[in-house]
Amino acid sequence: MATKAPRKTAERIARVTLDLFNRFGEPNVSTTLISSELGISPGNLYYHFPSKDKLVNHLYDQFEHDMLRLLDAGSDVQDIEDAWFFMHSLFEQVWNFRFLYRDLNHLLAGNRHLETHFRAVLERKTESIKWMLASMTAAGLLQLDGDTADTLSTSMTLMVTYWLSYEYVKDPRRALEPEGASRAMQQGAQHVLALLTPHLSRPQLRAHLQAITHSYSTSN
Amino acid sequence: MATKAPRKTAERIARVTLDLFNRFGEPNVSTTLISSELGISPGNLYYHFPSKDKLVNHLYDQFEHDMLRLLDAGSDVQDIEDAWFFMHSLFEQVWNFRFLYRDLNHLLAGNRHLETHFRAVLERKTESIKWMLASMTAAGLLQLDGDTADTLSTSMTLMVTYWLSYEYVKDPRRALEPEGASRAMQQGAQHVLALLTPHLSRPQLRAHLQAITHSYSTSN
Repeated sequence: MATKAPRKTAERIARVTLDLFNRFGEPNVSTTLISSELGISPGNLYYHFPSKDKLVNHLYDQFEHDMLRLLDAGSDVQDIEDAWFFMHSLFEQVWNFRFLYRDLNHLLAGNRHLETHFRAVLERKTESIKWMLASMTAAGLLQLDGDTADTLSTSMTLMVTYWLSYEYVKDPRRALEPEGASRAMQQGAQHVLALLTPHLSRPQLRAHLQAITHSYSTSN
Repeated sequence: MATKAPRKTAERIARVTLDLFNRFGEPNVSTTLISSELGISPGNLYYHFPSKDKLVNHLYDQFEHDMLRLLDAGSDVQDIEDAWFFMHSLFEQVWNFRFLYRDLNHLLAGNRHLETHFRAVLERKTESIKWMLASMTAAGLLQLDGDTADTLSTSMTLMVTYWLSYEYVKDPRRALEPEGASRAMQQGAQHVLALLTPHLSRPQLRAHLQAITHSYSTSN
């Protein structure tokens, strides 16, 4: 047990910091606030994470690891349900690390690790959505030419990336609080998938997509 | 002349500040930097704008005034050219005040004036795009039902609002520099209008839209 303690403390620090960042925004959370929330000394926090940037990068690496694994599933999308779950999972991941998206440009401007890595994740996001579109086209669900698929995957990436920011502008005091989670994710996934509607190959698929979206919006 | 001097100085301060904010981001520009760039004393700057927030709000009010006037034109869109110019003008306005969009959530979190006003502009933006869609539908250019128009206008608003942020993430060191202006605006307008493509009522209109987009992308 004794040898595991430092790692356990580091994990607890990371978990509490993620929660504080998500609630108040990274620029508004100091290391003093973090150590006070944890009930540990600033020296103990410093022992595990010598700077706030180290904490940000540690959390970012967790985010990236999970996000890249998730993005691998883009090419497995075979039907409308798959598309819904894939999109909803992307939004869940964005929500879990929403502090990154809330102050994205600010974080990128001061952190070289994030600047290079976040861009790479964004490119992977677009690639993954392209795979999803190709897979759905191959399965006969969508009718899309290559240029349209390229433009559409860029627009869908942008919407996945900025949906929560948009909700935040509309309601800064509540949009990113935990009570708003299911509504925000459901609305985001619905709007992104709506971009596919006019490209669905059969009218029944459109009704099917609307039915899935609706059943999740009422169950939440 | 003597009575006009204070106003002229205030205008010069506002112009130089806007340029600095746009180039470096509002959080990275101090009032010390502003007065040094202007070659005036901090006391003189303070006389015209007693805080950085007063400067931000002054610039914001200029932005809002121009943006609201522009948004009135949404309902005048009668053909594909009008749609292109309307969308391109929106992007021009976003570009001219890109500091607002670059650190939007950060600015909103600390400024009640911006928090309430920016949200209202966003709602007006969505309304204006709805008018554009209604006008294009009435002119026989689009085939859209009411629900689709609502979802689409939200998605188009989001893309107008966050396109530059997206460009910034892809290339933080260059995306917001003046050399990137025409490309960023053209790409943004093209992607937003591409969302209309599958709803155009005739195949010729699609070719027409692509031709307009293409002629601007090569002329810039």
